[in-house]
Amino acid sequence: MTETIWLIVGLFSGLVSIGVAVWLYLWVSRQDPGTPEAQRVASWIRQGAISYLKRLYTALVLVAIVLAVIIGIVFGISHADRTYGLKMAAAFVTGAVFSAVAGYMGMTIAVLANVRSATAAERGLNPAFNLAFRAGSVMGLAMVGIAVLGMSAIYLLTGEAEIVLGFSFGASTLALLAKAGGGIYTKTADIAADLVGKVEVGIPEDDPRNPAVIADNVGDNVGDVAGMGADIFDSYVASSVAVMLLGVSLPDVSMHARYTVFPLILCTLGIFASLIGLQLVRVGPDGKPGRALNSGTIITCVIFGLMAAVLVWLGGYNIGVLWATLAGLVAGVLIGFTSDFFTGDDKPPVVETARVSGSGAAINIITGFSYGLVSIVPSIIGIVAATLASYYLAQAAGMSGVYGVGISAVGMLAVSGMIVSSDAYGPIVDNARGIAEMAGMSQQVIDTADVLDAAGNTAKAITKGFAISAAALTVLALFAAYAQEMQAEGVSIVLSLLDPMVIAGVFLGAMTPPLFSAMTMLSVTHNAFDMIEEVRNQFHRDPGILAGTSEPDYEACVGLAAHGALTSLIGPAFLAVILPLLVGFVMGPEALGAFLGGAIFTGIIFALLMANAGGLWDNAKKYIESGMFGGKGSDAHKASVVGDTVGDPFKDTAGPSLNTLITVMSLVSSLFAPVIAAFHLF
Amino acid sequence: MTETIWLIVGLFSGLVSIGVAVWLYLWVSRQDPGTPEAQRVASWIRQGAISYLKRLYTALVLVAIVLAVIIGIVFGISHADRTYGLKMAAAFVTGAVFSAVAGYMGMTIAVLANVRSATAAERGLNPAFNLAFRAGSVMGLAMVGIAVLGMSAIYLLTGEAEIVLGFSFGASTLALLAKAGGGIYTKTADIAADLVGKVEVGIPEDDPRNPAVIADNVGDNVGDVAGMGADIFDSYVASSVAVMLLGVSLPDVSMHARYTVFPLILCTLGIFASLIGLQLVRVGPDGKPGRALNSGTIITCVIFGLMAAVLVWLGGYNIGVLWATLAGLVAGVLIGFTSDFFTGDDKPPVVETARVSGSGAAINIITGFSYGLVSIVPSIIGIVAATLASYYLAQAAGMSGVYGVGISAVGMLAVSGMIVSSDAYGPIVDNARGIAEMAGMSQQVIDTADVLDAAGNTAKAITKGFAISAAALTVLALFAAYAQEMQAEGVSIVLSLLDPMVIAGVFLGAMTPPLFSAMTMLSVTHNAFDMIEEVRNQFHRDPGILAGTSEPDYEACVGLAAHGALTSLIGPAFLAVILPLLVGFVMGPEALGAFLGGAIFTGIIFALLMANAGGLWDNAKKYIESGMFGGKGSDAHKASVVGDTVGDPFKDTAGPSLNTLITVMSLVSSLFAPVIAAFHLF
Repeated sequence: MTETIWLIVGLFSGLVSIGVAVWLYLWVSRQDPGTPEAQRVASWIRQGAISYLKRLYTALVLVAIVLAVIIGIVFGISHADRTYGLKMAAAFVTGAVFSAVAGYMGMTIAVLANVRSATAAERGLNPAFNLAFRAGSVMGLAMVGIAVLGMSAIYLLTGEAEIVLGFSFGASTLALLAKAGGGIYTKTADIAADLVGKVEVGIPEDDPRNPAVIADNVGDNVGDVAGMGADIFDSYVASSVAVMLLGVSLPDVSMHARYTVFPLILCTLGIFASLIGLQLVRVGPDGKPGRALNSGTIITCVIFGLMAAVLVWLGGYNIGVLWATLAGLVAGVLIGFTSDFFTGDDKPPVVETARVSGSGAAINIITGFSYGLVSIVPSIIGIVAATLASYYLAQAAGMSGVYGVGISAVGMLAVSGMIVSSDAYGPIVDNARGIAEMAGMSQQVIDTADVLDAAGNTAKAITKGFAISAAALTVLALFAAYAQEMQAEGVSIVLSLLDPMVIAGVFLGAMTPPLFSAMTMLSVTHNAFDMIEEVRNQFHRDPGILAGTSEPDYEACVGLAAHGALTSLIGPAFLAVILPLLVGFVMGPEALGAFLGGAIFTGIIFALLMANAGGLWDNAKKYIESGMFGGKGSDAHKASVVGDTVGDPFKDTAGPSLNTLITVMSLVSSLFAPVIAAFHLF
Repeated sequence: MTETIWLIVGLFSGLVSIGVAVWLYLWVSRQDPGTPEAQRVASWIRQGAISYLKRLYTALVLVAIVLAVIIGIVFGISHADRTYGLKMAAAFVTGAVFSAVAGYMGMTIAVLANVRSATAAERGLNPAFNLAFRAGSVMGLAMVGIAVLGMSAIYLLTGEAEIVLGFSFGASTLALLAKAGGGIYTKTADIAADLVGKVEVGIPEDDPRNPAVIADNVGDNVGDVAGMGADIFDSYVASSVAVMLLGVSLPDVSMHARYTVFPLILCTLGIFASLIGLQLVRVGPDGKPGRALNSGTIITCVIFGLMAAVLVWLGGYNIGVLWATLAGLVAGVLIGFTSDFFTGDDKPPVVETARVSGSGAAINIITGFSYGLVSIVPSIIGIVAATLASYYLAQAAGMSGVYGVGISAVGMLAVSGMIVSSDAYGPIVDNARGIAEMAGMSQQVIDTADVLDAAGNTAKAITKGFAISAAALTVLALFAAYAQEMQAEGVSIVLSLLDPMVIAGVFLGAMTPPLFSAMTMLSVTHNAFDMIEEVRNQFHRDPGILAGTSEPDYEACVGLAAHGALTSLIGPAFLAVILPLLVGFVMGPEALGAFLGGAIFTGIIFALLMANAGGLWDNAKKYIESGMFGGKGSDAHKASVVGDTVGDPFKDTAGPSLNTLITVMSLVSSLFAPVIAAFHLF
């Protein structure tokens, strides 16, 4: 009974969150759209973004239909309840569509807000910051609202956590396409624009004569807004679902109802905490937007922690789940901030990498890569600490330890509304800077946009550390859910490394994240070459482009980037969805469990390495550009540009897709666990 | 009874192998040492190498004494037999000393053979090849001979496989110091010589005016001869010991004696096969030394396979162990040759990486790194296939499957005598080329040395793939031995990923190889900067050096490289030996098992990535230098030089040390397993 009320509160909180997002959307769209010149530049970006989304969603519709039919048939046949397949397929489609809607809202507001933020920058830092941050909040609030709405509604309607798993798989499938596709898109355009623009013909960044420049700006949106949003959406939903499944399989049956709904209640509280926290983000008189974002995050966490304490106290929940929630929350914040140590502007790793750049690009690469390897350590220790703390604190309070680990993931992700808002702010101000440059706005606007942009980069680094650790705990919870699903079918998952099938499974799983990374990165260089070819052709066909008298064909580059990114997804998507099923059906449930284990661990290690090394190279370049070690144009600077370019696909293409990869693989395994078990017992 | 005879045959074969090595040593040292100028250059390299070995062995003595005392005390106290600690400590010291002697023989002959090979090149390709290959065989034969002698003698004296484990741990401790120290040494000198010589003052490679040039040539010997030899020595011994331990714990007690000695018998046959194979290595009339090396390897494998078949047939062994032996042998050869696909001169990955280099260093790095990631796949599939085949074929024949996996590692490594001989040939001809250049020998000599050198690089690539896969199977066997040791103490190792200690163990283990890699690579750049400083000072103090009128102080650079490499070892050695013990004692036997599992899988993945990406970048540069895509001096060439320099510490420092790291960690765990178990049960 109480649970039903809570589910209705969840529905309501989701609607409130979406309502606030819509209100902010309308508010932003009513702001001054700027000069006609600025509007013209912005409209190119907007059109490019919308055209990419159309293609992406077309691809998604195809993938979703195929998978929905398969799911419908497989679960229709294998389940006693004949409508089960239909329900599962419907949940899957809903997950994909809901996730797409959240991404669509975030993207469309981002491409409205960029030009408005640039225009607001004429009135100073504060108005521009507020506008960009409110626009970012549209993404954050839409995402959590839609997620909680979807999960609550499905569970209210069906009462089955497994069906919510279908919803989660749908959301993750979209996330994989959005994140990997967006990552390939953005770096294809970025590298092509740089190589042909800056290097070959020597025009500055964001120069409107470069035909690839619009694609580059579109890329910031599709990679960072739609991609990162979808990524956290998918962890957010997956962690909740994993805990719901763990709740259903608690040994004490009387606890099932309460602890299955508990993760949704935490998410609901997280929405309210985020709504309050968002109001409190203000740039102080010292004018430091980075500090405003960080203190907003901290305040939201504190509010959420207090709410969770009150909930556990008044609701009579086991105190262990509170400790687990707090363990996850604290670990998430700490990991976020320590990842700042390895990528932060004035921290030793960045300074050291910048310093050695004077000896050439190779030394810059070796040093940055090595610090990237070291940067794995604190995050891993944080994840380990969160795992041990949440498990043993929950267990000491008489609660299931595994349930505690799952709850720590939910606790970490509950404040996603705030985290995503800070993150989505980044590409908006980045774009604002590009528009100001291209539309010939004043230097003061560009300088203001630079300050806003730097804060966005810090927020982005924190979000990445956060997203990876949250994904780590989420997949551990999903792994536990997988083991429970198998247990329920009578298959015990004992990963003995003396069993050759387990060894084979771990090896195959462990090689999947590196292979996936390689596929996406090779797509980036391959597609970038196509785009470079196109740009060279344009310059060749019409010399007026470089002279500044004719307008380049931006649409051609935008189309190439979109087409290239989406066709490049076929291999990686196959790897994510088909390989686990192949391993499961051919080699058995044990091998699949081992496969997931292998993929989880190397996936997290490569994700951390790539995200942090990429961020470090980026900031080492910026540190030199700020005038250190010879400054712009020096040999050190040239070396650091090489490092930055290598880091681009590391941090924006391969690295961040790995979370989603391991989440999708875990979900597809859990979802198909009953079928695989039946197949093997048969 | 038969076993005692076989052990005596083993002793005898070891002595024969050592005898042939000594005979070849004397033969090489009697050859024409060349012109006084060449002898002078060679003597610098020789002195540098000997001085490094002295320092390395001094460090080793310190480490060995400390560890021997600890081992003696711990095993003296914990064991009922009071002499057990003494025996274990003695075996440990013997392992370290034997491994050192093999390395010393290999190194001293290499620095005698380099100048003699250059001198022989004046008479043509064939004499130079024969001399270099015979010198390489000294290392190969000394290594296997000493290993088999040591293992047979200890087992004959004590009758306890656990004591042979102490011998193996001693050998591996030296291997870790030799491999990681040599890897840091060689790349410190290489990078410093290149950066300050080629880039800063613009003198060619191997120019005698460069004070770092002797250190660079010394580095080839300490890295490739002593290091790689010690690396395979350690896998060779560890795989045999692991199988001996598995033999002792076979369920059928009557099989113990026979199957404990069986791996030593295989090693003995491998020695005879290698001795025959070595005689058949001849450069044909087409003058292709690479083909001669490869066909020598194949012939040795075939002979060994036939011998193993006869042994199993006549000796009445279970047919399953023959299949396992052959599975390992075939997989080893296949993995070696497929790793050639990713690093081979004219294969698609190298050509593609060379092609894109025209777009700059960053694209070269991204592409090479991505192919490096892809290159993991075939080796992993090979390892998985060998594991599955050896396990199930052994099991189908009624033999223990785990024992089969161990035997496949032994089967792979039994032909090490031949493999190491081909590998040690490489740095000898590389050095010969350097001496020819520095001593002003004729262009014909340099050209001949170039042809010999290219063959050496192919052999080196094959050896690396081979060494990593052999290490993979070895550590799997060691893991099984660890689990058996724990089982014997009443602790069952069940790696449930629902157990937080297991999760924590895997995470900590998985992060160790990346951290170890980072430590060694950062040491390389750090030490290289010290050496660059020294070289700059020398140029500054005495302008006569660059003018060619005064001789640089080579010794200063040699000393810096040696000192830097050895002090840099403290951290990595601590990680390898102390971390597993810490995990074991603090977190328990299960967590230690999980830790090993995590380390094994990421260790192998990073080892493959780094070895192959490094080889690929190297060959992409060489491909461009052969005149493709613009040839020497083009933009593509400059970009490929950056990739090559990044690849240097990947393939010669971090990558190859990882095998040894995971072997040492597995050995220390197995060795201390009884003590850790007792501590936790207590």
